[in-house]
Amino acid sequence: MSVRSKLTLRGSRVDLGASEITTSLTAIFTRLGCASEPAHQVAEHLVDTSLCGMESHGVMRTLQYAEQFKTGYINPKAVPQVVTTERNTQEVDGGGGIGIPAMHVAYQHGMQIAQASGISALAIRNVGHTGRHGAFADIAAAKGFLTICVGGGNRKKWRQVAPYGGARGMLPTNPWCIGIPGGGRGPVILDFATSKIAGGWIYAAQSAGALLPEGCVIDAEGNPTRDPEDYFNGGAILPAGGHKGYALALVAELIGEAMLGPSTTEGNWLLITLDAHRMRESSALSQAAEEVLEELRCCPPAPGYESVEIPGEREREHREKSAGIVSIPKETWDQILNLHDSLNSSS
Amino acid sequence: MSVRSKLTLRGSRVDLGASEITTSLTAIFTRLGCASEPAHQVAEHLVDTSLCGMESHGVMRTLQYAEQFKTGYINPKAVPQVVTTERNTQEVDGGGGIGIPAMHVAYQHGMQIAQASGISALAIRNVGHTGRHGAFADIAAAKGFLTICVGGGNRKKWRQVAPYGGARGMLPTNPWCIGIPGGGRGPVILDFATSKIAGGWIYAAQSAGALLPEGCVIDAEGNPTRDPEDYFNGGAILPAGGHKGYALALVAELIGEAMLGPSTTEGNWLLITLDAHRMRESSALSQAAEEVLEELRCCPPAPGYESVEIPGEREREHREKSAGIVSIPKETWDQILNLHDSLNSSS
Repeated sequence: MSVRSKLTLRGSRVDLGASEITTSLTAIFTRLGCASEPAHQVAEHLVDTSLCGMESHGVMRTLQYAEQFKTGYINPKAVPQVVTTERNTQEVDGGGGIGIPAMHVAYQHGMQIAQASGISALAIRNVGHTGRHGAFADIAAAKGFLTICVGGGNRKKWRQVAPYGGARGMLPTNPWCIGIPGGGRGPVILDFATSKIAGGWIYAAQSAGALLPEGCVIDAEGNPTRDPEDYFNGGAILPAGGHKGYALALVAELIGEAMLGPSTTEGNWLLITLDAHRMRESSALSQAAEEVLEELRCCPPAPGYESVEIPGEREREHREKSAGIVSIPKETWDQILNLHDSLNSSS
Repeated sequence: MSVRSKLTLRGSRVDLGASEITTSLTAIFTRLGCASEPAHQVAEHLVDTSLCGMESHGVMRTLQYAEQFKTGYINPKAVPQVVTTERNTQEVDGGGGIGIPAMHVAYQHGMQIAQASGISALAIRNVGHTGRHGAFADIAAAKGFLTICVGGGNRKKWRQVAPYGGARGMLPTNPWCIGIPGGGRGPVILDFATSKIAGGWIYAAQSAGALLPEGCVIDAEGNPTRDPEDYFNGGAILPAGGHKGYALALVAELIGEAMLGPSTTEGNWLLITLDAHRMRESSALSQAAEEVLEELRCCPPAPGYESVEIPGEREREHREKSAGIVSIPKETWDQILNLHDSLNSSS
């Protein structure tokens, strides 16, 4: 699903209003069996993600989730719940559904606990795809919370990434997401895979007959390669930053599988939420952050770069420029409309 | 100070028993004005770090700390305290001394709170060099705690690292340290700088007349270079993993300076401590972790590598092989002995 956003599309695109798409997607998810709140949350999340320019995690995921409902991989009727475990800790049970509503509940509940006691830790279990974590982190950080969200446990399903020094794909691309209150232009959001490139790039290069960037992928013998076919013939993606990305991926896998496991639908997540304003008063924090960030924005760019970016600002700027209009590949939108029509006619 | 460990030494080394060195260093720190507990903690930490093979953070730091006492940069008489702030949060005040005793107090206190309430967040302030964080994380993880320690706030002092896409050194090498309970061979410890290489490498290359590895440093115009002189003439180190290491360094700087700031001696640290056994029973956690780790140890190595390592194991194996003997460059040990003698004669 994430291939198309990395390619120059051959077909045309259609421009649609965000609220129109949200209405259509909400109708689709409701017809597919979702309760009205989760249906709306997922639709809003996907549309907002497309508005932010992250097409691979946006509106096109509707088709993937519908397919996953059909095969029984995830459960459309799931409604996430905060539950208390046998070990007397609170956690979010996603009920085996799309992970986006569970993440909503987790960030909301995490903020409530942190507001009362300073910091909270919540496990999120029994979830499918959890969407764009940066979106949740951005909302929480704008309200004054530092969040760290990380998880794993899917290595048996997705052995895409080689450990540092290894010749085989052993780990998933286990992402990390951290949000922290920023200055005048909003929070700083770190939201990245621990691998050099996302798996989607490789499908994209294969489909386009293109070579991959240097130093990203190894073949089945562990030798560097740029040929996407080598990846599919037993190769692997390298970890970002060598042993550093590998260590981050491994910690994520241990959190998801060993500390919170065993993994179920798509692994387990840990969300840490800290009330930053317990540490420093809001306006002083914001002013000090702005000073750091403004220095970085003023850094002269290196050759080949236009400017130094602040992580999280690109997505917000894209959303603002979009002015409520999402540009969707026509083929994708046609498939979504077909899905919509088929669900209506079958009722 | 960190140069020598990266170079093949021209001079000879002396092999000394760890307890002998610890006694000497404790005597030195006591003579320099430290209270007996901090003096012993610092000595033990430095000797253990040398035993673990991390010479740049080991015994040789004695000379640096003594110099920093002399210039008034840090205060030998400091004794770290847990204090309650105006905002009614607990934190560790290092009193402007060496940061190692403050980190001891923070990890101990963090574990106490986490044991009682599941998770804790502590700021650590007014500290000089805080030593090898991996050592503290290893002890905590062996007791069943997940810890995350990160901080910053020193960019005005150490503008060594360029932001992603930037042509200037703007940020320090802001390290991250994470420890998590592991399997049969102990915890997994992530402890790394967010830059591609440590500053010490560049001094080492300069001193040896050697070129730097490719892709680590830029010159004053932001162009890639391997010449260490270019770094000293307005160049910068690149962030590890491109925009990913940059984002980690920036989050650390915002935590240290904006959320916990303003920075004092050497910036501020945030320590998050989570009781992992609240999430899962100890033996099940350990067994699941061992399964993940054993898979990775069995991964065939890539060409040029001997094996896939588990982060944290190298240091523990080095300590075990050392069998209580530290091999110190003779020149360093002579300087430490001279310091010891001068302190005794001046009394």
